[in-house]
Amino acid sequence: MAVLSLCAGAAPAQSADLVVYGDYVLTMVPDEPVLENGAVVVRDGAIIAVGSRQTIDEQYIGAEAIAGTHRVVMPGLVNGHTHTAMTLFRGMVDDLDLMTWLNKYVFPMEGRFVTPEFVRIGTELACWEMIRGGTTSFVDMYFYPDDIARVVDRCGLRAVVASPHIDYPSPGFSGWDDSFAAAVDFVKRWQGKHPRITPAFAPHAPYTVSPDHLRATVEKAAELDAIVSMHLAEAPSESAYIAENFATTPVRHVQGLGLYNQRLIAAHMVQLDPNDIALTAASGVGAIHNPTSNMKLGAGISPVPAMLNAGVNVGLGTDGAASNNDLDLWEEVRLAALLHKVQTGDPTAVPALQALTMATRMGAVAARLGDKVGQLKPGMRADLIQVQLNKTRQLPLYDVVSHLVYVTDSSDVVTTVVDGKLLMRDREVLTIDEAALRASVARKSDEIRSALAATDDAS
Amino acid sequence: MAVLSLCAGAAPAQSADLVVYGDYVLTMVPDEPVLENGAVVVRDGAIIAVGSRQTIDEQYIGAEAIAGTHRVVMPGLVNGHTHTAMTLFRGMVDDLDLMTWLNKYVFPMEGRFVTPEFVRIGTELACWEMIRGGTTSFVDMYFYPDDIARVVDRCGLRAVVASPHIDYPSPGFSGWDDSFAAAVDFVKRWQGKHPRITPAFAPHAPYTVSPDHLRATVEKAAELDAIVSMHLAEAPSESAYIAENFATTPVRHVQGLGLYNQRLIAAHMVQLDPNDIALTAASGVGAIHNPTSNMKLGAGISPVPAMLNAGVNVGLGTDGAASNNDLDLWEEVRLAALLHKVQTGDPTAVPALQALTMATRMGAVAARLGDKVGQLKPGMRADLIQVQLNKTRQLPLYDVVSHLVYVTDSSDVVTTVVDGKLLMRDREVLTIDEAALRASVARKSDEIRSALAATDDAS
Repeated sequence: MAVLSLCAGAAPAQSADLVVYGDYVLTMVPDEPVLENGAVVVRDGAIIAVGSRQTIDEQYIGAEAIAGTHRVVMPGLVNGHTHTAMTLFRGMVDDLDLMTWLNKYVFPMEGRFVTPEFVRIGTELACWEMIRGGTTSFVDMYFYPDDIARVVDRCGLRAVVASPHIDYPSPGFSGWDDSFAAAVDFVKRWQGKHPRITPAFAPHAPYTVSPDHLRATVEKAAELDAIVSMHLAEAPSESAYIAENFATTPVRHVQGLGLYNQRLIAAHMVQLDPNDIALTAASGVGAIHNPTSNMKLGAGISPVPAMLNAGVNVGLGTDGAASNNDLDLWEEVRLAALLHKVQTGDPTAVPALQALTMATRMGAVAARLGDKVGQLKPGMRADLIQVQLNKTRQLPLYDVVSHLVYVTDSSDVVTTVVDGKLLMRDREVLTIDEAALRASVARKSDEIRSALAATDDAS
Repeated sequence: MAVLSLCAGAAPAQSADLVVYGDYVLTMVPDEPVLENGAVVVRDGAIIAVGSRQTIDEQYIGAEAIAGTHRVVMPGLVNGHTHTAMTLFRGMVDDLDLMTWLNKYVFPMEGRFVTPEFVRIGTELACWEMIRGGTTSFVDMYFYPDDIARVVDRCGLRAVVASPHIDYPSPGFSGWDDSFAAAVDFVKRWQGKHPRITPAFAPHAPYTVSPDHLRATVEKAAELDAIVSMHLAEAPSESAYIAENFATTPVRHVQGLGLYNQRLIAAHMVQLDPNDIALTAASGVGAIHNPTSNMKLGAGISPVPAMLNAGVNVGLGTDGAASNNDLDLWEEVRLAALLHKVQTGDPTAVPALQALTMATRMGAVAARLGDKVGQLKPGMRADLIQVQLNKTRQLPLYDVVSHLVYVTDSSDVVTTVVDGKLLMRDREVLTIDEAALRASVARKSDEIRSALAATDDAS
């Protein structure tokens, strides 16, 4: 085709690193329809062109090409809130309320088992699952963030890695002072240093971090121009605590402390009143909706349609695998489309395209990555996936967007590209040694099982 | 092993048709724990033994054996409410309210496209998806039930096939008289004639079938001792119609007409008051919960925990692929576990095992198949599946039931057996020619697309 275009007197074909074809290209650029028989061109990790197959073939020669028959090319998904290493606690305890789950199980388990090695293995397991499922960016909040960042560096994903600080003892720390000092140090060391890793502060929640400590976080985040990621307005118990102690809502509490002036990624955002929603919209705070986790912990249903109407940037998250119990963002997309229809009684609420927007373009903005990813257009970093659409259980196909939301599973993702680099080809993850990972997970989970059995025997 | 047991003077090993092993066996018999390293023995289509691998190997010699490493053996899932052939409408229209969806799209589409050939192809596509996903029994309600029954006969699944009758024109019929006469004829011809197929009456809903016609249904169902399957108490619009016309609730309306004295399978059961729930429990009516469909159509949240507390037999259904948009019962299991936690604010509501019970033992009772399937124990028909548990995204494994509910997807099902016959082995469906099916679906959906495009052009 390049030769033909030369013969026709057109400009000579330009070189590219990678051309990804698709029977369908869903750019997620506002108001752009699904492009049939198209391609995305990548050079130096960035998207340099999106267009019809014919135009692209005339203008570019890719060093590598990925065929697109029966596939849609679209932006990779953005998981706006997770605790990756908790994959090692997947399914250990279920069907408990948030405070029992946190105080009786999660915090004690973390105190007992979470080490740098645990975090390396658990994070790698999470990254494997995310690459396989088409998630290309995630916002993490977990202990030993340097170890998380090194796994992210190796496996090729993009992440906001938030270093947790909390007023109570946590893995590696005795309380606030040392956990906050470590977070400041982490942010300073990683800020601006890695093309795919953005460090962040992670004050755990308004009910576990004092107002003074939240003010200190604001001060340092402003000084370092750093992202802040935190749990906010998750459950009724949090609202009750904040009302009793500060006579306000969780949102207005942290807003009053200055957090809404920072680049805040607020996870959950369930317990909101109209004032909270208006403040969130006005501030540009990213709100991450975690439907599975909120349902499983009985936290409530986030007022997502009201937030969207008010102009809040709403993203989607899986939360950790201990409360989900997987990192499959397609389930969150589907639930975002379903849950608010039944909550409002309006089946036109959160239509399929809007749900998908929350996992891509708008989710990227909410995760403070909107300048880099979430849309397929020239200038954006090349974070994209191919999803297969012709499996027998997907037939027939009338509407690509409908299928992506209501029919697609993580197993339908066939290609994952981040920053122009292939992380998965034809379902094979290229950057993680699956056999070695499985062996590590087996060893670590055997340790956990043995320790739990010993505790059970002793009690 | 058989030789050893003979040497030890034990009884000689008995012959069996099939032995299905599992690292885990989940019988779903009340209060039976997960059996590790076990097996299920099948002869003449029935389960004749369930026990430890060692005991089974000593006592039985199977003509065929299926290995169970990293697999759980459990009862096949029961889909208590679906319209199988609507797979051919999968994803055609979404994000509309029930009455618009029904009256503007579904009914006209059905009038235009639904023929015996459409039903044969759509039903086969549905059966393929159900076999692949581990559903072994289903309750169908769709046009041309003889064609449905013939597909079920060939593909090996078990089904209650309900013949629809409605006061309005429907595919093949001008209204009530002929559709009801055809249903009576269908039930007479199939009742007691096939080991896996049970015919049933299907008066569409209380808002589409008059009281006189519901009374006539009751009379014929009583005379023929036949199952009745219908939509009941689905959406607020139905409740409003029944209140306006009959000054009662949908449940008390049909109860007053005698339907609650029949073997009724009532689909949806969303709009219920405490009286309705008490009547349903007392009557033994099976209530089929369709969470995805109810959410997608904004119908409301069924009071499942209250029904379970009252003793109602609650099963799960996918509804048709036009309102789901697939027939994946694992998603319904997961949603049944999640939705009622957030609805009640109680994260201990509908724990994982209870959700799984609704898809197996209790679902079988609700679908009027509880004497045949839903549990793995001697005397039951051999409807069982193997689910793989060691894929990397499922690791680690602490609790089999938790993983089945919160992590398993339909793609994790590896073996499907119905009535002792293997319908899928190692993910390969053995009773349906996938290539031929795909060709038929392509042809039929092309026809639908062309007709729709012609309509669009003309309008």
